[in-house]
Amino acid sequence: MDAQKTAPPPAPRAVSCARLHRFVVEALRRAGLSDADAGVGADVLTTTDAWGVFTHGTKCLRGYLRRLKAGGLRAAGRPRLAAEGPAWGIVDGDSALGMVTSVLAMETAIAKARQCGVAYVGVRNSCHFGAAGYYAWLAARQGMIGLSMANDIPSVAAPGSRGGVTGSNPISYAIPAGRHPPLLLDMSIATVAGGKVYAARSRGERIPDTWLVGADGRPTTDPGGYPDVGALQPAAGHKGYGLALLIESLAGILSGAAFTWRVGTWMWDDGTQPTHHGAAFLAIDTSVMMPAPAFARRMEALVEEIHAAPRADGVERLYVPGEMEWERHARATREGILLPADVTASLEEAAAMTGLNCSEFIP
Amino acid sequence: MDAQKTAPPPAPRAVSCARLHRFVVEALRRAGLSDADAGVGADVLTTTDAWGVFTHGTKCLRGYLRRLKAGGLRAAGRPRLAAEGPAWGIVDGDSALGMVTSVLAMETAIAKARQCGVAYVGVRNSCHFGAAGYYAWLAARQGMIGLSMANDIPSVAAPGSRGGVTGSNPISYAIPAGRHPPLLLDMSIATVAGGKVYAARSRGERIPDTWLVGADGRPTTDPGGYPDVGALQPAAGHKGYGLALLIESLAGILSGAAFTWRVGTWMWDDGTQPTHHGAAFLAIDTSVMMPAPAFARRMEALVEEIHAAPRADGVERLYVPGEMEWERHARATREGILLPADVTASLEEAAAMTGLNCSEFIP
Repeated sequence: MDAQKTAPPPAPRAVSCARLHRFVVEALRRAGLSDADAGVGADVLTTTDAWGVFTHGTKCLRGYLRRLKAGGLRAAGRPRLAAEGPAWGIVDGDSALGMVTSVLAMETAIAKARQCGVAYVGVRNSCHFGAAGYYAWLAARQGMIGLSMANDIPSVAAPGSRGGVTGSNPISYAIPAGRHPPLLLDMSIATVAGGKVYAARSRGERIPDTWLVGADGRPTTDPGGYPDVGALQPAAGHKGYGLALLIESLAGILSGAAFTWRVGTWMWDDGTQPTHHGAAFLAIDTSVMMPAPAFARRMEALVEEIHAAPRADGVERLYVPGEMEWERHARATREGILLPADVTASLEEAAAMTGLNCSEFIP
Repeated sequence: MDAQKTAPPPAPRAVSCARLHRFVVEALRRAGLSDADAGVGADVLTTTDAWGVFTHGTKCLRGYLRRLKAGGLRAAGRPRLAAEGPAWGIVDGDSALGMVTSVLAMETAIAKARQCGVAYVGVRNSCHFGAAGYYAWLAARQGMIGLSMANDIPSVAAPGSRGGVTGSNPISYAIPAGRHPPLLLDMSIATVAGGKVYAARSRGERIPDTWLVGADGRPTTDPGGYPDVGALQPAAGHKGYGLALLIESLAGILSGAAFTWRVGTWMWDDGTQPTHHGAAFLAIDTSVMMPAPAFARRMEALVEEIHAAPRADGVERLYVPGEMEWERHARATREGILLPADVTASLEEAAAMTGLNCSEFIP
């Protein structure tokens, strides 16, 4: 690449969380969502950006708007609790925005866990739900342990397979930690996200041999063929693959959703068809099992023990899961969010699709 | 090493599952356990050997006998349900054999899941519980999804830590799969077990740089210092570390057990003190959420889709989790178990500790 001919990327622009939220609400309302549903979608996407997880935040709005317009997502879809028992429920998403369905599902799990101690809610007829961590955090915000997971169209190999066998199947948990922010892990079961492969390709770089399998199903350091050929590798081989199948079973099989290749793509099609994604949510009300102050003290001790543990040469801090995200969130709340260029470009498209003036919201 | 001077290792000896089971029952009875408790211990350990997971099967018996003799494990310990609600329970192990406590806990979770759909049971005052997979399978044997996990004294680094921060914290699941054997995954959150590091050291080999951190906390290919210096690396870095803390929270914190460095070692001490291990079990009764035949058909479709998926060059079969273990189990039931030399040596010590004649049981 000839660096001298390449214009410098535009500097990121800071936008307040409130303005970004307002933009998403307005765009989703113009796509036909109710005020309440638009608010839920905006809550999820702007919180995700505030955590610094830009791959799953407002950058995705454009794709949802496209599906809402094409009919694969239904603006008037009404997710409902299709079946339930004391500590479980199944939510049918009715092809509504994945965030709306997922928030209903986790809120159902939270309410049931308050009665029974723990609850599982499976979701079918949903779509991409954004960052799994948001829903886990909904439980933690109520003092509970939350788990959240979803399936997706296959992109990740099994050990020995030539192509994708499972989705990158995200799994997340959030655990209240007393005076510390909740532990918050949000991971896919692939070694790395596909986006990292694209990025390496666009820079002309080789990749580590644990990221991808090539056309022959063998590990490759060449990112060139993905995603047309090859597949992502599961994290830690059979471990990531094994977790993928647990997630597929809880989110895809037991919920009555589509699973593996039956799941539609939410990004690469014409947007007219439902994707039938599945998801699963678990809430555990720790306060019925252990007095809340005792649980908080024990979690604080765990966090503080890790913070104080001896560090490797050159390492300044040890982090617990979510700590970086919460620090970014605090800064975003204070100073606004510095949106990367690919996000602002995507928001401009979203504005154009809905007749909004992006610059009215985002400086 | 001078190979010519090294005697060939003794050929493994096949023993029927029934005889091996009888040996373990008799040894545990001589150590003071009731017939019922000795039977539970023998069920767990011989099933584990039949799966071919020899690191966690009858090889461990010697260590349990040592603790029973020294008082750290109590032969007359009576695990009890110390607290409970509709879909949860906390079992106090009373320093009984870890298998006895863990079977009670999973059976409690299964019974509660039958009422509520899903249940969590935490365990405190336990000890090493062997292979996590056994307890998950207890649920699958009853048509449920089972999850099982435990904490342990730290041996695994956090990203950036110099030494161990979490235990190798096993997690397992089992999922009934219709006409196929249950999916069964049993994994630690470390890249590899410590035993693989010892084995490489004894062969004078280097190890991949993803297994261990050395004295400086940096990845090393030298297995020489472990376990006196360094620590295992978490599988897939922050992902394995993140899972370790979820397991620690469910098995160690919420159960009221010891956690991280407060957990005792079950192997490297004088055996006189309880280890206060924690564990956690979850059961999900899928049959209340989806008709059993429908769930079975969907799981069968998942398994068969993976079996039929395109394979990488040179790969003969794709496996689902547990498939290899169930094939070994079937062969062990038919032909007996070929015990590796380190296991028979350990059983001979166990016999000597309890006044048994090992050769009466094991040919």
